[in-house]
Amino acid sequence: MSLSGIIGYPVTPFNEDNCAVDIKGLAKVIDILLGARVDAIAALGSAGEAAYLSESEWREVAEYAVKHVGGTVPVVIGVAELTTAQAISYAKYAYEIGADAIMLSPFSYYKLSEKEIYSHYESVSNATPLPIMIYNNPATCGVDMSPEFMLRMISNIKNASMIKESSGDIQRMHKIYKLSKGKVPFFNGCNHLALEALNAGASGWCTAAPCLIGDMPTKLFEAVKGGNYLEAKELFYQQFDFLEFIVTSGLAAAVKSGLAIRGHDFGDPRKPLLPLNDTEKRRLNELLDELI
Amino acid sequence: MSLSGIIGYPVTPFNEDNCAVDIKGLAKVIDILLGARVDAIAALGSAGEAAYLSESEWREVAEYAVKHVGGTVPVVIGVAELTTAQAISYAKYAYEIGADAIMLSPFSYYKLSEKEIYSHYESVSNATPLPIMIYNNPATCGVDMSPEFMLRMISNIKNASMIKESSGDIQRMHKIYKLSKGKVPFFNGCNHLALEALNAGASGWCTAAPCLIGDMPTKLFEAVKGGNYLEAKELFYQQFDFLEFIVTSGLAAAVKSGLAIRGHDFGDPRKPLLPLNDTEKRRLNELLDELI
Amino acid sequence: MSLSGIIGYPVTPFNEDNCAVDIKGLAKVIDILLGARVDAIAALGSAGEAAYLSESEWREVAEYAVKHVGGTVPVVIGVAELTTAQAISYAKYAYEIGADAIMLSPFSYYKLSEKEIYSHYESVSNATPLPIMIYNNPATCGVDMSPEFMLRMISNIKNASMIKESSGDIQRMHKIYKLSKGKVPFFNGCNHLALEALNAGASGWCTAAPCLIGDMPTKLFEAVKGGNYLEAKELFYQQFDFLEFIVTSGLAAAVKSGLAIRGHDFGDPRKPLLPLNDTEKRRLNELLDELI
Amino acid sequence: MSLSGIIGYPVTPFNEDNCAVDIKGLAKVIDILLGARVDAIAALGSAGEAAYLSESEWREVAEYAVKHVGGTVPVVIGVAELTTAQAISYAKYAYEIGADAIMLSPFSYYKLSEKEIYSHYESVSNATPLPIMIYNNPATCGVDMSPEFMLRMISNIKNASMIKESSGDIQRMHKIYKLSKGKVPFFNGCNHLALEALNAGASGWCTAAPCLIGDMPTKLFEAVKGGNYLEAKELFYQQFDFLEFIVTSGLAAAVKSGLAIRGHDFGDPRKPLLPLNDTEKRRLNELLDELI
Repeated sequence: MSLSGIIGYPVTPFNEDNCAVDIKGLAKVIDILLGARVDAIAALGSAGEAAYLSESEWREVAEYAVKHVGGTVPVVIGVAELTTAQAISYAKYAYEIGADAIMLSPFSYYKLSEKEIYSHYESVSNATPLPIMIYNNPATCGVDMSPEFMLRMISNIKNASMIKESSGDIQRMHKIYKLSKGKVPFFNGCNHLALEALNAGASGWCTAAPCLIGDMPTKLFEAVKGGNYLEAKELFYQQFDFLEFIVTSGLAAAVKSGLAIRGHDFGDPRKPLLPLNDTEKRRLNELLDELI
Repeated sequence: MSLSGIIGYPVTPFNEDNCAVDIKGLAKVIDILLGARVDAIAALGSAGEAAYLSESEWREVAEYAVKHVGGTVPVVIGVAELTTAQAISYAKYAYEIGADAIMLSPFSYYKLSEKEIYSHYESVSNATPLPIMIYNNPATCGVDMSPEFMLRMISNIKNASMIKESSGDIQRMHKIYKLSKGKVPFFNGCNHLALEALNAGASGWCTAAPCLIGDMPTKLFEAVKGGNYLEAKELFYQQFDFLEFIVTSGLAAAVKSGLAIRGHDFGDPRKPLLPLNDTEKRRLNELLDELI
Repeated sequence: MSLSGIIGYPVTPFNEDNCAVDIKGLAKVIDILLGARVDAIAALGSAGEAAYLSESEWREVAEYAVKHVGGTVPVVIGVAELTTAQAISYAKYAYEIGADAIMLSPFSYYKLSEKEIYSHYESVSNATPLPIMIYNNPATCGVDMSPEFMLRMISNIKNASMIKESSGDIQRMHKIYKLSKGKVPFFNGCNHLALEALNAGASGWCTAAPCLIGDMPTKLFEAVKGGNYLEAKELFYQQFDFLEFIVTSGLAAAVKSGLAIRGHDFGDPRKPLLPLNDTEKRRLNELLDELI
Repeated sequence: MSLSGIIGYPVTPFNEDNCAVDIKGLAKVIDILLGARVDAIAALGSAGEAAYLSESEWREVAEYAVKHVGGTVPVVIGVAELTTAQAISYAKYAYEIGADAIMLSPFSYYKLSEKEIYSHYESVSNATPLPIMIYNNPATCGVDMSPEFMLRMISNIKNASMIKESSGDIQRMHKIYKLSKGKVPFFNGCNHLALEALNAGASGWCTAAPCLIGDMPTKLFEAVKGGNYLEAKELFYQQFDFLEFIVTSGLAAAVKSGLAIRGHDFGDPRKPLLPLNDTEKRRLNELLDELI
């Protein structure tokens, strides 16, 4: 499997009282992403509220996502568990159900040392043959992994082969590119850094934006890859306010509100997360009106 | 119930392969704390690796802790869950099993807004009559609550009545004391800030240190309360290197290693947490030798 | 010379259009500090707007301060220059005019390495026999010196013998105390940390507060040294809101406004610094009314 | 005058004992920059050690730089003074000697409020008709100005018309571009962000790099402006390690060492700044060998 391009992140729809996953809704949001020409689907990421699901819900979403995509594009499963044992259990499940890769992040309560993080990745790698995308997102995971450290894991840990960088610092991507001589694929996980990341050699962009703005992210990716610099810049600035808005107002809340504006009621994010307030909803509506 | 003094935090002992709670060990560590003359027991805090337990283990530890303490001192149960629903479920359980209070912290994946945190505390407060200690620990929970915000919750949320401050900034305690005119009880959760916190009017000190150094924390508390300033200072500096060590080397790992040095094999912390390495163990041994 | 207790910081009065030092005013403010029973005078510190004076003004203030104090208490001269050459020039001048010590900080444009800072202190030490107080104030100086590094300079650089710690982190003082086994005198430079610092073994408190609130800082110092813990705490909380106010609203501006409220018109701080606005002046008036 | 492209920053050469400016050396380094096809010269910036010059040296460098450039390209003079009075004095001088613009930054001892910074810029603007480039460099100046605030100054302060952004956060540039609808020229001051900044619409790049690597920065600028995306990326990655090195090892020290390697002995940076050590010099030598 070779990943590149736009990796689309579905939200996890809930039924009316937010107590169970709405599987029909999940099918719908995956279809929206596929309709937006994404190159892969990543279920159970931040946008998918993976941290807020019960174990049985988590397994249900993972299994259904793989099944519904049905091999048309690769499926990546996010694994962000506090214990190594649970991460291994989920990684094995991802393998069993036929996922193509896992995106593994060191979600933490106690801050973890590099030794602890390394051991976490190594243990998960030993448990399944699935390719591992090392996912660095200090804002949500509470630990920050340097480019040097992640590249060391990629050199030494069998299945660790890709990086998703969400720290928001473009210099990290330059470092990855330079230190690996362009050999290690890295993906951008910071929506409002998309243009810079792709220019810096990112293999793709992990984003929930196509849930709301169709193939605009794909067009941006294609413009960069095609060397159409001015078009890429124009496309990026068109999307920029929208991308910044969904990041700063809470990804799951914003995308679910946007889908509701589009007529898809997939429930609210799970508490303590709150949905957008009325002012934010109006602003999102304006932003979407400008774009489509 | 009125809490004050030393609130002792048991680690959660595991059996040999770290896959199940060692209930006999839990009894032993609680007995060690009671022998150290603690004024209350707080199960399922950071030291207790609450974040790394399964739901059934969590309930088992909570229930057994209350039962084993048997009313000799109050029992506080830590609740640090990602979803409001799970926090409510655990709070209700704490009430059912006869705990005296809960210590509630807003553990987060997505950063939470004050509105989201407020709603989380309010929902839990509405679910049980148990007193709530608002627990601020930005280093583990990923969100930071200001003194002003916590006092506002105490004014407006029925059962929210106490604060545990672990940000490490002594000015927060001055603020709580001044803004509440000394009326809102606050507890120190930052081991190496114990002397300052007690001098600043803290009602007590939340600590796992008595697992290893007996009643030295209690003596420090008594010295401050008795106005024996020089003795308090001397006692604090005796403990200071030890307190700093267990904080910087990882609380659960350090306390479990120290208990092993004392002859109690309660297992390692759960992965990805690693036990102390040999150099750290030697250093801890030295520190304990100096103290006892 | 042995420094301890309250080290009082005069502001630098300016004449009406702020273009020259008001020497009569300087005499007055020094007299106010001496009347407040300070144990030493430190001219040309942050409160004295040293960074905003011309070279000739700086020399004028230094010389007059020493002359006016006339040996009744020790005089410390602040030296915070961007170049080592200028720091040496000022240190020599401080020695010539009969100052008792210099307080030397590594004010920086480019961030300085420890090697550069060390060399700066060493060069100044070699230029005069005056005792050097190492002054750490990352908020104004742009560099932060660790306790370990400052103690290393004290071990190895001839005249470096004292520390002034203004980082606001009480743990730094514990470190200095423990690592030096209580042998290296350190002073608190963070007004709202005064109680903790003195309890932690600080030799004194560097403060401009006595310009406005008389001997209240001295009383706090005496209470701590006399072991009157409860009285010290009460005195500290009386002053706390005031101390916090002058720190957060700008030290030079706040002290000059307070002196104007007291009937001493010593001019405004130098631009770009602005005087307090009307709301702030009213608040300061209230705070002073409560205290005196 | 319209600025765009590469704005070259000369270091300030000193004579042998670093006690005076080496005017012949200054002519030489300006000639090197002009030979590297820079579009403007900016004297007395960070690279020029402006903060470490006496007033008479500052004036000497400013006057000579304008004279030596002789109108072939525009000359910008950096003004980073602690007092508004001195900034006005220098700005007037820049105007008198025929400079084309000033680059004004709010160097601070006390942290400045937005009101204080605004007043500083307004006062300088009122003193001369020279265009003002607002220069944001929190790392050296100690204050950080948001895009919104800088754009407000540009709207309201007569001569404020350009921005130099050196915070290192590419999002600031997106903000400036979007909020000003591409109308306010902004320049990149962060060497290792050059590619992103130019792609984001920066009018130019302020850099001392042409002192050492000839017209490589100009080529990068031309590639971006010509829409030659792949070439721009390749040029950027060629220079990246070098750019990162001179930033992290100290700009003035690194550029002076590099010039010495090239046979131009312009003295060391002024103390407390230290020259590169031998390891760093060897590394710089390697980096230069790879590039030229």
